[in-house]
Amino acid sequence: MLLSEIARRLGGSLRGRDLEISGAAPLDTAGVDEISLCTSERKLAALRRSKAGAVLLPKQVPQLLSEAPCPVVLVDDVRLALARLIDLLHPPPVSPPGISPRASLGEGARVPASCRVEAEACIGERAEIGERCHIGAGVVVGEGAVVGDDCFIAPGAIIASGCRLGRRVRIGAGTIIGSEGFGLASEEGRPRTIRAVGTVVIEDEVEIGANCTIARATLGETRLGRGCRLDDQVHIGHNCLLEEGVIIAAQSGIGGSVRIGRGAILGGQVGVADHVEIGAGAQIGARSAVAGNVPEGARVAGYPAVAIEEWLGERVLLRRLRRRTKTKKDRKES
Amino acid sequence: MLLSEIARRLGGSLRGRDLEISGAAPLDTAGVDEISLCTSERKLAALRRSKAGAVLLPKQVPQLLSEAPCPVVLVDDVRLALARLIDLLHPPPVSPPGISPRASLGEGARVPASCRVEAEACIGERAEIGERCHIGAGVVVGEGAVVGDDCFIAPGAIIASGCRLGRRVRIGAGTIIGSEGFGLASEEGRPRTIRAVGTVVIEDEVEIGANCTIARATLGETRLGRGCRLDDQVHIGHNCLLEEGVIIAAQSGIGGSVRIGRGAILGGQVGVADHVEIGAGAQIGARSAVAGNVPEGARVAGYPAVAIEEWLGERVLLRRLRRRTKTKKDRKES
Amino acid sequence: MLLSEIARRLGGSLRGRDLEISGAAPLDTAGVDEISLCTSERKLAALRRSKAGAVLLPKQVPQLLSEAPCPVVLVDDVRLALARLIDLLHPPPVSPPGISPRASLGEGARVPASCRVEAEACIGERAEIGERCHIGAGVVVGEGAVVGDDCFIAPGAIIASGCRLGRRVRIGAGTIIGSEGFGLASEEGRPRTIRAVGTVVIEDEVEIGANCTIARATLGETRLGRGCRLDDQVHIGHNCLLEEGVIIAAQSGIGGSVRIGRGAILGGQVGVADHVEIGAGAQIGARSAVAGNVPEGARVAGYPAVAIEEWLGERVLLRRLRRRTKTKKDRKES
Repeated sequence: MLLSEIARRLGGSLRGRDLEISGAAPLDTAGVDEISLCTSERKLAALRRSKAGAVLLPKQVPQLLSEAPCPVVLVDDVRLALARLIDLLHPPPVSPPGISPRASLGEGARVPASCRVEAEACIGERAEIGERCHIGAGVVVGEGAVVGDDCFIAPGAIIASGCRLGRRVRIGAGTIIGSEGFGLASEEGRPRTIRAVGTVVIEDEVEIGANCTIARATLGETRLGRGCRLDDQVHIGHNCLLEEGVIIAAQSGIGGSVRIGRGAILGGQVGVADHVEIGAGAQIGARSAVAGNVPEGARVAGYPAVAIEEWLGERVLLRRLRRRTKTKKDRKES
Repeated sequence: MLLSEIARRLGGSLRGRDLEISGAAPLDTAGVDEISLCTSERKLAALRRSKAGAVLLPKQVPQLLSEAPCPVVLVDDVRLALARLIDLLHPPPVSPPGISPRASLGEGARVPASCRVEAEACIGERAEIGERCHIGAGVVVGEGAVVGDDCFIAPGAIIASGCRLGRRVRIGAGTIIGSEGFGLASEEGRPRTIRAVGTVVIEDEVEIGANCTIARATLGETRLGRGCRLDDQVHIGHNCLLEEGVIIAAQSGIGGSVRIGRGAILGGQVGVADHVEIGAGAQIGARSAVAGNVPEGARVAGYPAVAIEEWLGERVLLRRLRRRTKTKKDRKES
Repeated sequence: MLLSEIARRLGGSLRGRDLEISGAAPLDTAGVDEISLCTSERKLAALRRSKAGAVLLPKQVPQLLSEAPCPVVLVDDVRLALARLIDLLHPPPVSPPGISPRASLGEGARVPASCRVEAEACIGERAEIGERCHIGAGVVVGEGAVVGDDCFIAPGAIIASGCRLGRRVRIGAGTIIGSEGFGLASEEGRPRTIRAVGTVVIEDEVEIGANCTIARATLGETRLGRGCRLDDQVHIGHNCLLEEGVIIAAQSGIGGSVRIGRGAILGGQVGVADHVEIGAGAQIGARSAVAGNVPEGARVAGYPAVAIEEWLGERVLLRRLRRRTKTKKDRKES
């Protein structure tokens, strides 16, 4: 594809000569027929050294433009341009539909001919799969589970019985939708399990990473709203409600009955206690431990999480105190 | 089932008229023929609005009773009553026994006809499965592993070679029993693996969540005592000994050779360092990092974990110091 | 094997009579024909009580030698001796090669006859497996993936399409090599996925635990250098570069585009933010949250991570302040 055509499709402007581009690659490995990108001055050295045929650069950092050793496509938002560029130059491989003779279909399971069901996949009794779904190798779809149109289920994922996925949902490899929850009562001093008989509902366009666990509700449902994005190894407890567009980075864990408002963003390795409510648009710093409610739009961090400026204030204070103590001690010793 | 019958079976007392109940559901979605529950005043608004046919309420919170818009079953312990209620109204589905023709049985594997072995499951050579077990789709039971009577192994779980499960054990989807451990020596400055040749023993009535990893012992065994409960994504290091009834919430990780006493409770995302001993009945707050031994019955929290009142004391102190500093600064600036 | 022969092979010296040894076991369960080991004075009581036929002891702790109730093999490095001892007495079981008729081989997949491919394993189209590999039950090797000679892939692991493993690599059960990454742009206020079209490269002799996730690169590759060791449930973000011999303990998570220098060691439950660089030989304490670059050879800990002596200093300071405050308060109250 011509660079000028790429620039046009990304809504960017071309600076420099036109050329044929065969693909996208990182700055340090891109070849003369590949396009790369540079998002910040931190990568300036790599940009100068790059053998890329062209680069995407942000309009906002003019220095990068002046240092680029090759034609440039200037864009407003490099990340968005990258998302589009990849879709343009590396469209997802189209695997032919077809149900592998090595897949297992339970009685009454409904799998349209437009689907691809790979070897060793196992579709339970009365499960319903939508049109054009990709069911990877070794996937298990439980009894009576429902998968909407155009879903992609990576190898080894498990959609437990009765759980429901909307359309265009992506589930990462090894992820468990509908694990058994963790409800305990105490009976004569010994733990007694409260069996979870609810379900999990995943709305349209949700994308979940690999080896996650989404627990089914005790009663009712655990729900992930439209367009939520979860990274790898995220845990969502029973009866949680994530509203539309919630973003959660890797290894975070959400307790039971937590409610997270629309568009909230959680960093990696965050923990959220049972029954907490996080307001829409809140931002939870990586590694925070959220023990109480978080207001709409708030930014919190820490263990336990507090307003981010408070947390930073504590860090500064502690450092100052420590240095003062050290100085006193040094004076004494000398 | 009649509400009066439910009340009788739960050992509760009925306040209000009798009616036929078809199932249990959350307060906000329960219909007029369903029973729900309310555990605390925080849910009072939802209780008032509920269309449930009946509710379980705790005797200890009389306000709830006065506000309930429907017949009530009063109980001593709502959680325990809920556990019983679910077993009563939603008994676990009984899947017919039978070994799927799409399951693989290794030479010398022993699988009684009372078991259900689903498609793509794989029972290794000389493995022994007890009576009435449920072996989910895609489960792998390794060579020579032993599974006791009435176990439930969810889809995609792996019981590695030589590991042993007692009776009535439940293993969550994607969980690995008998991962390879993480023992390293150093040889000429490079890591050298200490191969783990021990095993894992899971005693009767242990229940383990999804995507957990239980490492096999280097020598000897890693052991989980009777009735232990592990949530999803828990990691247990090699050679650990968990005594009876230990409870561990999601994403906690236990180092190698740790000993945890009877009935100890660990919150979510806890970490425990190698060789630590945690006493019986100890309670470890969520997200704590336990670096040293914890006495019997102690309650600890923090990073590193200390007695919980010390940890809370530090939090209070820090907040006070920070506010004082801020005030001084504000005075200066004004 | 004779104890004298064991001593010779481990480069240790025998103190006491010779005897026939049948295997290795922990101090508390070893029988009279087994050899055990004791690494420190903390285990002195167990050493005294042990019924082991012989023990490995470190030269550096003479007290152990004087208390041993049985013949002793004295060695310089007990851990290294243990690694060798296990290889000697418990060599890895040799499973006969052969491709299970219940495995699935895609068109154009290359699997040498020297390999063992177990039931329900699924080798994708055009995938290439090296000589003498062990491909466990239920493993999925994606389209066009490459696995070098002598690799061991435990049951249920997934090597996604296009990923490449070197020689003598070990992948734990349930581990995902080549998960989809977590790149997000924002488009009209809603998250838009940056599809990852890069790959993962695992160099020779890398060993990865169970239920890990290694994300594929957005563009280019995520790379784990020769001899890296990862424990269970570790997450490596997209485009990371781990140099040779990096060691990472359980449940740690590494953000995107992180670079970790040769021989660095990360404790359990560590988090590393995106784009961080960790120098060669650095040591990151368990549970640290690394938000900025770490110099070569540095030792850090804390949330956020700082030099370890600073972190310890803060802990001491806080405790002192808290006790002082408490004393004042007590004085007031009395």
